[in-house]
Amino acid sequence: MSEIRKHYFLSEYCIIAEERGKRPSDFVSREEEQKKQVSTCVFCAGNEAKTPPASAGYKNGTLYFEEKAKRVQGWEIRCFPNLFPALSPSSAPLFPSGSLVVFPPVSPELALTQLAISGFGFHEVIVESPVHGKELEAFSDKELRLLMQVYRDRVAYYLEQDKIRSVSLFKNYGKAAGASLEHAHSQLLALPLLSPLLEREIQEIQNLNFCPYCSVFEKESRSERLILKNRDCIAFAPFCSKVPFEVWILPKKHVWSLEACSDALLFSLGTLLRALVLKYRQKLGGPAYNLFFQILKAPEYHLSLRLLPRLSLAAGFELNTGIYINSVSPEKAASYLRKK
Amino acid sequence: MSEIRKHYFLSEYCIIAEERGKRPSDFVSREEEQKKQVSTCVFCAGNEAKTPPASAGYKNGTLYFEEKAKRVQGWEIRCFPNLFPALSPSSAPLFPSGSLVVFPPVSPELALTQLAISGFGFHEVIVESPVHGKELEAFSDKELRLLMQVYRDRVAYYLEQDKIRSVSLFKNYGKAAGASLEHAHSQLLALPLLSPLLEREIQEIQNLNFCPYCSVFEKESRSERLILKNRDCIAFAPFCSKVPFEVWILPKKHVWSLEACSDALLFSLGTLLRALVLKYRQKLGGPAYNLFFQILKAPEYHLSLRLLPRLSLAAGFELNTGIYINSVSPEKAASYLRKK
Repeated sequence: MSEIRKHYFLSEYCIIAEERGKRPSDFVSREEEQKKQVSTCVFCAGNEAKTPPASAGYKNGTLYFEEKAKRVQGWEIRCFPNLFPALSPSSAPLFPSGSLVVFPPVSPELALTQLAISGFGFHEVIVESPVHGKELEAFSDKELRLLMQVYRDRVAYYLEQDKIRSVSLFKNYGKAAGASLEHAHSQLLALPLLSPLLEREIQEIQNLNFCPYCSVFEKESRSERLILKNRDCIAFAPFCSKVPFEVWILPKKHVWSLEACSDALLFSLGTLLRALVLKYRQKLGGPAYNLFFQILKAPEYHLSLRLLPRLSLAAGFELNTGIYINSVSPEKAASYLRKK
Repeated sequence: MSEIRKHYFLSEYCIIAEERGKRPSDFVSREEEQKKQVSTCVFCAGNEAKTPPASAGYKNGTLYFEEKAKRVQGWEIRCFPNLFPALSPSSAPLFPSGSLVVFPPVSPELALTQLAISGFGFHEVIVESPVHGKELEAFSDKELRLLMQVYRDRVAYYLEQDKIRSVSLFKNYGKAAGASLEHAHSQLLALPLLSPLLEREIQEIQNLNFCPYCSVFEKESRSERLILKNRDCIAFAPFCSKVPFEVWILPKKHVWSLEACSDALLFSLGTLLRALVLKYRQKLGGPAYNLFFQILKAPEYHLSLRLLPRLSLAAGFELNTGIYINSVSPEKAASYLRKK
């Protein structure tokens, strides 16, 4: 049973999830583990019995669910609860107030109380392809369309669940980015609270009385930081890039989440994402990277995708200050990635 | 010439420092580099000519400075400007307002402006010992006293400099923590702005009207998360630990910075630090770690030291939400580190 804990007095949280200590990837050499995977990958087609039953799967483009006893084969994309979840729907509220969603503000009295709630939430794995080694950059248009639709479906599904306030949809590619299994997969965490980063962001946006992302779209669609664009979206290196070759993919239309995207817009987002991952492969040798969606259930919000390659390390200075030292300017990064 | 850039609308910053791309550690295998170092370490005694002149050195416990032409030998601790600085005192202000220290608030108009200032500041290396391979946990009391005094001196020196608003003093130990050279060293960055993390923290503290760290001291000095204590300080695993075996070292006395510490208090802090690093060696096999000092030039602030071993990776979820998933509870971590 995991637990969500609040910092003594700041709006910072951690999830204490000791069950995850049992993951084979922890405390063993990652090299050894990688070798094991190729022969016995639990995400591969045919090994469905080695994972929990699917919470949602897609076969011939059609949604299905699995009961406990059977495992559907021949799927195209398969979603199931993480076997070592950081958050779990069976967790009961622990915090005395009984409120799952709001940590009380800090008062002199509460500063001496440890604030924690049970680790309620959902943690899902989305296996992107039945084929081991098939990565996003090699997806056909049809496969890409389905993947983006699954992303949209699963986010929508979890945002509707009782006591869920936000969803984090992300992908870790490569060991250095935190992937413990090689087979292409994304993950989704549905949380009973707003992340502190999104909370600050929405507050700033509400203070502004206009959408800063709409402004950023205007500016960056014509800037030297632009990398690629299509009818609906741009991919660019953000002005304040934390890491070398950081990329944001931003739709022109003010859409707060994937749910508000039409099929056409989804596919536009997907094609830029696929093109960028291919660029990373061709231009940077296929580095480990983290991909995540900035999604917030608020009409003021403007969806984006972020790609952060792991070519540098956050060290003591970054941990201390929150300021990142980046040795490649976004202008140079964009110029390099733009080249054919 | 580096540049400090602000996020489009949030209080987030990065330092674009392209000169640092020239560091030998970048884009070459770190294994190879490590081998090179042992024979030709530029931080070793006798190789002073291979680094910039000392900005401050200590010989027989006495402070000295170096002119361009000569290099003092026989030093105990030696400080000099980083050869590939993230910030540099020669940078001139670039931001149109001419203000180095305050980024303007975001307005509809400024959201279309890219906010940046020149990378003004200082970046110093503190070589902790003339002997290659001598680490903190093996320091004699005399060596430890000197190191802590040098930390205090250098922080005080930089906080007095014109246009400097904050100082980050940190140590990266091991490759996985971002150390590019093996020889024991710390680093100091003096900044023309407050880090966003410290800025939020001091705002929260000012809202509280009492010192939350004084409360935390009371609580944690008697909790199951306590690891070690002496007359003046405690070392404990914080309730909301971001990573396995995170440790905070906190003085009982409300001191805002190292400058406000007596020699005795400094030594108390140092002995807990040395003991913890030794614990990491004995109990965890000497993992890579980041060490940093939480220092803020404000009487409301309460100094602490933070130690974060690199036993886990921040991945897509952490980057997306700012929430860390930690597979070892601080209670378990403290119990494990307490054992003889």
